[in-house]
Amino acid sequence: MIDKVTELNLLYDFYGPVLTERQQRVFTLYYFQDLSLGEIAEELDVSRQAVYDLVHRSERTLRELEGKLGLIRRYREEQNVLAQVKQQLEHVKAALGDHPVSGQVAEALEMLNTLQ
Amino acid sequence: MIDKVTELNLLYDFYGPVLTERQQRVFTLYYFQDLSLGEIAEELDVSRQAVYDLVHRSERTLRELEGKLGLIRRYREEQNVLAQVKQQLEHVKAALGDHPVSGQVAEALEMLNTLQ
Repeated sequence: MIDKVTELNLLYDFYGPVLTERQQRVFTLYYFQDLSLGEIAEELDVSRQAVYDLVHRSERTLRELEGKLGLIRRYREEQNVLAQVKQQLEHVKAALGDHPVSGQVAEALEMLNTLQ
Repeated sequence: MIDKVTELNLLYDFYGPVLTERQQRVFTLYYFQDLSLGEIAEELDVSRQAVYDLVHRSERTLRELEGKLGLIRRYREEQNVLAQVKQQLEHVKAALGDHPVSGQVAEALEMLNTLQ
């Protein structure tokens, strides 16, 4: 299980660019900068209901895309495998101590750490 | 550089589910089962031009989505890193010979090979 903010961050990170600029702005203000519907409404000079609709339509669009494409599900499965591989290589590195190939294992780990 | 069929395979693999069932069918017949526009037109009982439009609209949809989201670009960069890590670990495994941790390196490699 991941919490809702993490989930929305992933949805926005993967699929955010399909939203209009206005949708992106409102989504970010509401979910990531923690402004209230009322505050956003005031800033954009629209009704609170209009902001509510915009936020929820955007969220639905992102969720529908993930429902169809499943790219976040795929990404998270992959992250799980990578975490196991890194753990395994940390063990290997520790067991090797100052064995000559230890540095090569460390390099492999560094490369894996560039992936996120 | 990747060839056009590989590229279309990736586009379809990542984003195909956003196409309608009919678009998916025609796209697959044309690009992956190598039927001609005329053959598909006959099978679906529509004009050759209608099939042409369907194929090209679908292709444009997939390309636009990748243009916005860049998830295939991200995936391919990651595959490059993983290929380097695997190569590195193959060297490590070879250098370790029958060292006790050699099996753990082999296991890490096997896990990485489940990713694609």
